[in-house]
Amino acid sequence: MPGISHKGISMPESPIRKLVPYSNGAKASGKKVYHLNIGQPDIETPEVALRAVQNFHAQVIEYSPSAGFTSYREGLAEFYKKNEIHLEPEEIMVTCGGSEAISFALNSICDAGDEIIIPEPFYANYNGFTTAAGVNVVPVTSDIDNGFALPPIASFEKQITNHTKAIIICNPGNPTGKLYTIEELEALRDLVLKHDLYLIADEVYREFIYEGTHHSILNLDGLEQNAIVIDSVSKRYSMCGVRIGALISRNSDLMETALKFAQARLSPPTFGQVAGEAALNTPQSYFDEVKAKYVRRRDVLVDGLNTIPGVKCPKPQGAFYCVAELPIDDADVFAQWILESFDYNGQTVMVAPGSGFYATEGLGKSEVRIAYVLQVEDLKNAVEVLRRALDAYPGNTLK
Amino acid sequence: MPGISHKGISMPESPIRKLVPYSNGAKASGKKVYHLNIGQPDIETPEVALRAVQNFHAQVIEYSPSAGFTSYREGLAEFYKKNEIHLEPEEIMVTCGGSEAISFALNSICDAGDEIIIPEPFYANYNGFTTAAGVNVVPVTSDIDNGFALPPIASFEKQITNHTKAIIICNPGNPTGKLYTIEELEALRDLVLKHDLYLIADEVYREFIYEGTHHSILNLDGLEQNAIVIDSVSKRYSMCGVRIGALISRNSDLMETALKFAQARLSPPTFGQVAGEAALNTPQSYFDEVKAKYVRRRDVLVDGLNTIPGVKCPKPQGAFYCVAELPIDDADVFAQWILESFDYNGQTVMVAPGSGFYATEGLGKSEVRIAYVLQVEDLKNAVEVLRRALDAYPGNTLK
Repeated sequence: MPGISHKGISMPESPIRKLVPYSNGAKASGKKVYHLNIGQPDIETPEVALRAVQNFHAQVIEYSPSAGFTSYREGLAEFYKKNEIHLEPEEIMVTCGGSEAISFALNSICDAGDEIIIPEPFYANYNGFTTAAGVNVVPVTSDIDNGFALPPIASFEKQITNHTKAIIICNPGNPTGKLYTIEELEALRDLVLKHDLYLIADEVYREFIYEGTHHSILNLDGLEQNAIVIDSVSKRYSMCGVRIGALISRNSDLMETALKFAQARLSPPTFGQVAGEAALNTPQSYFDEVKAKYVRRRDVLVDGLNTIPGVKCPKPQGAFYCVAELPIDDADVFAQWILESFDYNGQTVMVAPGSGFYATEGLGKSEVRIAYVLQVEDLKNAVEVLRRALDAYPGNTLK
Repeated sequence: MPGISHKGISMPESPIRKLVPYSNGAKASGKKVYHLNIGQPDIETPEVALRAVQNFHAQVIEYSPSAGFTSYREGLAEFYKKNEIHLEPEEIMVTCGGSEAISFALNSICDAGDEIIIPEPFYANYNGFTTAAGVNVVPVTSDIDNGFALPPIASFEKQITNHTKAIIICNPGNPTGKLYTIEELEALRDLVLKHDLYLIADEVYREFIYEGTHHSILNLDGLEQNAIVIDSVSKRYSMCGVRIGALISRNSDLMETALKFAQARLSPPTFGQVAGEAALNTPQSYFDEVKAKYVRRRDVLVDGLNTIPGVKCPKPQGAFYCVAELPIDDADVFAQWILESFDYNGQTVMVAPGSGFYATEGLGKSEVRIAYVLQVEDLKNAVEVLRRALDAYPGNTLK
């Protein structure tokens, strides 16, 4: 029988995949499962985007240009301009989700064996994109006790080798909710300029800022040739399924290289682009309402979690995730136990164990990632379930 | 300034990209350009698929499962069953176009430096997918004089090394239109079984067969663990822009590995899957009409080409491309000249130079690929333009 590649074998599984049978088992036994593990918002997609697809009356659904429809790229340039980011349409490439934008960026700047530095905990799928590209992740650990602030620049610099090509940040962060300050970003800028690296910023949650101001790395002076931004319509307009993202850079060599990868896969999805272009006309009131909703959810969740004995959860400034430290020593075991062996009034929760968000072996074992994409009442119930579960859990380290 | 990867530098450009400015120039100077270079059919997308998208009334466009909607995978299994291919839904993974299916397959079975054998001329983007995966293409040359029949098995076997992981075929072929016989496929089967390789068949044109019978490698006895099929809705239903394909294999290790790559990129496009699932109900009359149309186009084009002095074009048995040998010694130069310096009654043509479809340096220089996706009258005019152009061309080798 023919074999599987080392690359394929080393591709990470989703951090929650192992739990899915237990979640299904819990549901089969009649329990209600609150899904705190997923990043699929329940917010409605803007009407204007849905209607544009329903009213799209082409008779042939043709390939679009490989870099996306020109009208959409022009529209995106206008959108960023309104957000004080000045871009030409040629500096924006439409991709199949933010995922594809990251893959294009990695393949354009890295060969097999090259290295990318990422502050951990980080979005688990970065492991997948780097593995697929044959690139090694070098983590720099951030600390829950200072709200996952950017680790000291010296700890990044220590990791830079001849193989280092870039630093990746997610701002605001999935899974931490951390919003980097301008000082943190400028320190990263100075570092990448000093060592001639790229700075890749995943800014897909930029509309979800609850405290402070979002600073795009595209606005950092002097970083024009080094800055690569990953964007996506998935969370902004709650339409994860349309699979539309963007790769943004003012570095024309990079964009020309990425275009060759884009040409090989022909084009991004047409219907998704129709939705994305129409969504540019989403009224500000939509975002205001969504933001108010998330602030309330965050407060209910995080304030609630912090009242549970032994739980520590810094308040996120953006996105819709938080990382909580629990009084447990193996979140994988706990996450399985709570689904399999626990319920409170017929309810239980599914959480994402923290270790999947760390590259350093052994870290994150007492942490979980919780997404606050549920209704406030459900979040209140979920916090109560967690409180009772930790109280009942034989492995509670406070005991 | 930070650099570009070797991988990025070695990514091939589209074979026609260099010609685009000349095509635009020809149009700007008022010439009508017949696009014989593209594979975008003018056939209408089935009404049933378009209507399903227009009537899709979800309020949140959510991620779908990473392997695609279950209902769609079940529908695809039914579809293949009707085509005498017996599959379980788990043996079918929905991808973002056939392109993504090839990438998943390559990454699942190959590490950097591994080799894939492909009979040339082949679909130019295979070069892109292999380069992105860090894989080397080893070509085996087929011959226009026998209609691009499968090269002798001995010439494949000669190329097999410790690094060889698979043989890729496209059946029926882009760019050749060649439909492999059952004997050719069985010979390939015996070879891959002997050497424990995968056989990857790109069968995206399987509905477009004009002579003979299509044999899927999924129906070859004994090949269950070695057969990987790439499929797509792009050409079948003339909806290239929806970006929906499929990776098909009965090898569960392979499918589980591919699923990890699929999970990293989250999900295939939702709207495209809605269109794809609805398109399964396309009436047979649609295919009958389309096929009749292509047979007529093929005959007009290929019979016409073969009446031009010095032109040789084997008649394709499937797909909607042909490779023609012209009395020229550099098709890149000719393709540029015909756009830039020639017209017949204000008309000219754009063709894809053959060298882009060969991996062996220097081959295909007197060949062009022509797609017959235009109306019959346009094809007649295009043949006449080509006849006059070759007559006028200073580099005509008959002169």
